[in-house]
Amino acid sequence: MPVDTIAVHENQVKIIDQTLLPLKMEYITIHTIGEMWEAIKVLRIRGAPAIGIAAAFGVFLGVKESRAQDFDTFWKDVEKATDFLASARPTAVNLFWALDRIKKLVQYNREHSISELKKVIFDEAVCMIKEDNAICRTLGEFGADLLNDGDGVLTHCNAGGLATARYGTALAPIYVAKEQGKHITVFSDETRPLLQGARLTAWELHQEGIPVTLICDNMAAAVMAKGWVQAVIVGTDRTAANGDVANKIGTYGVAILAKEHGIPFYVAAPTSSIDMTLSHGDQISIEERAAEEITHGFGLQTAPEGIRVYNPAFDVTPNRYVTGIITEKDVVYPPYSENLKKLF
Amino acid sequence: MPVDTIAVHENQVKIIDQTLLPLKMEYITIHTIGEMWEAIKVLRIRGAPAIGIAAAFGVFLGVKESRAQDFDTFWKDVEKATDFLASARPTAVNLFWALDRIKKLVQYNREHSISELKKVIFDEAVCMIKEDNAICRTLGEFGADLLNDGDGVLTHCNAGGLATARYGTALAPIYVAKEQGKHITVFSDETRPLLQGARLTAWELHQEGIPVTLICDNMAAAVMAKGWVQAVIVGTDRTAANGDVANKIGTYGVAILAKEHGIPFYVAAPTSSIDMTLSHGDQISIEERAAEEITHGFGLQTAPEGIRVYNPAFDVTPNRYVTGIITEKDVVYPPYSENLKKLF
Repeated sequence: MPVDTIAVHENQVKIIDQTLLPLKMEYITIHTIGEMWEAIKVLRIRGAPAIGIAAAFGVFLGVKESRAQDFDTFWKDVEKATDFLASARPTAVNLFWALDRIKKLVQYNREHSISELKKVIFDEAVCMIKEDNAICRTLGEFGADLLNDGDGVLTHCNAGGLATARYGTALAPIYVAKEQGKHITVFSDETRPLLQGARLTAWELHQEGIPVTLICDNMAAAVMAKGWVQAVIVGTDRTAANGDVANKIGTYGVAILAKEHGIPFYVAAPTSSIDMTLSHGDQISIEERAAEEITHGFGLQTAPEGIRVYNPAFDVTPNRYVTGIITEKDVVYPPYSENLKKLF
Repeated sequence: MPVDTIAVHENQVKIIDQTLLPLKMEYITIHTIGEMWEAIKVLRIRGAPAIGIAAAFGVFLGVKESRAQDFDTFWKDVEKATDFLASARPTAVNLFWALDRIKKLVQYNREHSISELKKVIFDEAVCMIKEDNAICRTLGEFGADLLNDGDGVLTHCNAGGLATARYGTALAPIYVAKEQGKHITVFSDETRPLLQGARLTAWELHQEGIPVTLICDNMAAAVMAKGWVQAVIVGTDRTAANGDVANKIGTYGVAILAKEHGIPFYVAAPTSSIDMTLSHGDQISIEERAAEEITHGFGLQTAPEGIRVYNPAFDVTPNRYVTGIITEKDVVYPPYSENLKKLF
């Protein structure tokens, strides 16, 4: 069973520090909201669902020392904490979803005492872990039905156990298929510039004894041409109501390659990552990250001084490339505008 | 004007050590055939045309101290040198082409004295530099006609001046277009695992004052979707008689993306890189390189210990994705089997 990415022991929040992987597997204890903000910002914890849960714990850490005596003062502390955490990753819809959820919960329980409210927030964050495990598990079962014994699956970035509390989204179908006795082999795009595929996906599948072959992003087409890939499954940071999918940069290219080779392209999307308020993917704002991620990949300078760089963190895959969206409620097929509405 | 990749000063062969780029631009003198073999092997000099010229000088270095008194003994030394150099890079057709050319030349001049034969080889290598410059220049003129003022051009790997004696193949049209007063901007794929796009293409274009934006390989699709690219131009290590193109891994994927976005995909191919003895691209053997290039890319380990890796150096782009093949004789369009035959 995949490792716990975020765990609670004796009321302490621990996360796997993913910046140390794949060389070192280490839990760190997060003591303050500032530490949680930093952990989200520098990707010690990443992946849409895991960020949501981390943010919920972050709110708790932000208000647990609050000296507020009345609800209005406490509410100001909650808002300060949620605003701060929201600034850590501007594209991740789950972050906002989780923060909103905590805010609504606090408002709903406004008649309770401040110390009870603190406990309500903590319990909700713990509940989100359990919920996430259930969601990923069910999503994985729907996804596993799409895979056959002997299939090769290509994935991009890490939407694995390390991106959620435990099972993952894109990798959940693979974990479940393995339990069902199916032999699945995985091709993991290394996913430049931050190499989540090499560092995280390859690591967690390897840990679980699932055969995985690491490739550079530009090798996906050659691997598909060889007939080694029967399905692509990727995660999503945010999917629009029409089925346009924002995910790690490079996803859109993989979708085109899959279409060209007649390979189904699936998106594993917990319903919390589907934003029904967005009619199209082009309304999704795309975070641009620092040039140094490309020019100074891992401490070493590999590009000329002063070179211009374009470094978007995400791209948007238009719905016409998406064979199916695997959620925890069902697998949704086109037309997405119609069928996603039915799902909700 | 692009820098000289390989140069002769006072009978000494100097090459730019491309493993030091983009941090340091340094010529090294190659004194022996062993040094030349090593320079080709570890990519101090790379790119199909440049390798051919380097190999010709390598033969000279291999036989210049030959004590042979008769042709048959000298011929054995020539064969020993050419066999050795051929083993440095098994996929590069230009390497074999250049070695064959030297061998034929030696046979043709077999009536000459041994010292005259040594000079014949040296002069031929010098002549190959001039020839290469003329070929690349003419190819660049044909290619420049395909580009319009304001165009964005995407390229993969380095088929630039650094891959030839001076002008490059894929970049020659851009250098010539600039001379013609056209404003061309270039998107350079970084080209994992060895980052020739980041280290070499970005460097040489930047040196020449041509606007270049560096991207990771997996960003090409997003850049195309933005409408920033009006043409793709890549080089080739070996093109078959039917127009199937072997080139740096990732080229095939770029070709598919270009097709999907309605962008013309051109291959800059000096006729010496077109192998009319191969009817199809699937007859081209694909070199697989060490896993460490991917797992320890930047000197740092970025993938789990013992992970399986697939690391092909090249892929084959089927002719149906190729809009045109730019040679030094003309731009060739489909049907390639017919039109390449006419060219030769």
